[in-house]
Order: sequence, then structure tokens, then C-alpha cells
Amino acid sequence: MRFTASYLIVTSLFILASGQFACTADTQINTIPDEVAQKLKLQEQAWNAGNLERFMGEAYWTNDALMFIGSQGLTFGYDQTLANYHQSYPDPEAMGQLTFKLLQWRQLGDSHGLLVGTWHLERGGDHSNLDGHFSLTWEHRDNEWLIIADHSS
Amino acid sequence: MRFTASYLIVTSLFILASGQFACTADTQINTIPDEVAQKLKLQEQAWNAGNLERFMGEAYWTNDALMFIGSQGLTFGYDQTLANYHQSYPDPEAMGQLTFKLLQWRQLGDSHGLLVGTWHLERGGDHSNLDGHFSLTWEHRDNEWLIIADHSS
Repeated sequence: MRFTASYLIVTSLFILASGQFACTADTQINTIPDEVAQKLKLQEQAWNAGNLERFMGEAYWTNDALMFIGSQGLTFGYDQTLANYHQSYPDPEAMGQLTFKLLQWRQLGDSHGLLVGTWHLERGGDHSNLDGHFSLTWEHRDNEWLIIADHSS
Repeated sequence: MRFTASYLIVTSLFILASGQFACTADTQINTIPDEVAQKLKLQEQAWNAGNLERFMGEAYWTNDALMFIGSQGLTFGYDQTLANYHQSYPDPEAMGQLTFKLLQWRQLGDSHGLLVGTWHLERGGDHSNLDGHFSLTWEHRDNEWLIIADHSS
């Protein structure tokens, strides 16, 4: 009985360890963390509901050290980035409907990752559609993944 | 004597440890590793000598998984990135004179970092000057810092 219990424990630990290694290996290549993919989905929904505050709140680090590089150059800070979004997209018609496509995740050590993808804005009225690429640097801090730097072009 | 030696050792270790912490704290904020700054300097020199092979060889990861995001979208791989550079900058006049300005380094764990800065191309003839921002993801591998992803816009 004791032998059987030990055997079961050792076997379970081995299976757990194997799973862990497999998972780590996959992560290194291209598996986007579920939480990251989910946050981008929530960002799309917030944008498409015309809510820039919620769009940023879903994923961006609420900190003055947040970096955003876009058509206006480099911006520091959550508040200034939000202000820029409001300036560029003053109303729901300018915002249009956002679709992200997630192309590549690179795990950078234990607590960071780089996500590369495309964004598309489908707009009506006088506004032309817009397209571009993003590269988002994520940091796992306070038990969640957050965008600490965004380069969108 | 033994006490004095122990005292010296403990004091030395304390000083070393303090230096280490101070250095780590600085690194988290904005100290660009010397090697990274040096590589960008060598890249400028190579570009300004009209040598794209050397420009890439100074800093980019020689791998098919290298990512480059530029005006042509997302490119994978060292060879294709070099081919794109040759297409966009077919001769020294098109290349012009390159100046990097390094704005911000973010250490991402032990072995990665994000460098944000600006690039400027001063060109003559029929070519207009060009300006933009870059964000470079670096990985410390095989005892050196290498660019594993470049987003330039």
C-alpha cells in the first residue's frame, strides 16, 4: 500500500513535470497566454462600444512610465496616451470598428512577452479605413499581464 | 586579526551588494547597457559607409525567427530583412547618413530589454530626409545582446 501510494505520487509528479516542460516549450514558440488574448478581445469590444477609457483600462499599465509610440511619436504615461486617443478618435464614427489579428507571441523570460499583430479600423462616413501593425510589450505584474509599451504603426 | 578579516570581508560584501542593488535599480529605469549602445554606434558607422551587410551583422540575431516591422509590414528572418533593406536602400545616396538617438531602455527580466529611440536619415539628391521611431527588443544570448525584434516607423 505504501509502495503503491509512493508509486502513484512519483508517477503523478512525473506527469505534472512533463506537462510543465511541454507547456514551457510551447510558450517559447508561439502560444499566446489566454489572459493576453482575452484582454485584447475585451479591448476590441470596448473600442467598438465607443469607450476609450474601458479600451485602455482592459490592458494598459496604469503608470506614468507606460510608453506609446504611434503616429504622434513617443508618448509617456497612461493619462497622456488616453488623451491622445481622445484627440485622434473624438467620436464613435472616427473610432469605427476595430479588429485585432494576433500573429506572434514571444515569451521574454518568465515575466515578459512581445505580441505582434495587425489592427484594422472599419469606418464609415468621411473616415477612411485604417490598417497597421502593433508590437506590444507585456509584463506580468501584480498577478496579471499588462501592456507596458505599445508601438503601433 | 580574524575579527578584522571577517569584518573586512563582511564590509566588502555589503558594499558589493549595495552596488549591485543600486546598479540593478538604475538598470530598471534607464541605463542602456554599454554593449547595446556600442552596437548601435557600429550600426550607424556601417550604414554611413554604405554597408548594409555590416549594418545588420553588428546587432541583429542571425535567425529565421528575427522579426522586423516596417513600412512593408511584418517580415520574418534575417535574410529577408536584409533583402528588404537592399530593396528600400539600393545605393549609398538612398541610404544617406543615419543618426540614432537612444531615448529609453527598459530591462525586461535578466536577459531581455526594450530600447526605444529615433532614427534620422540625412539624404541628398532626389531623396528627402526621413525620420522615425524604433523599438528594438533585445535578447542576451550566447554572451551578447542581439536584436530579436525591430519595429521601426
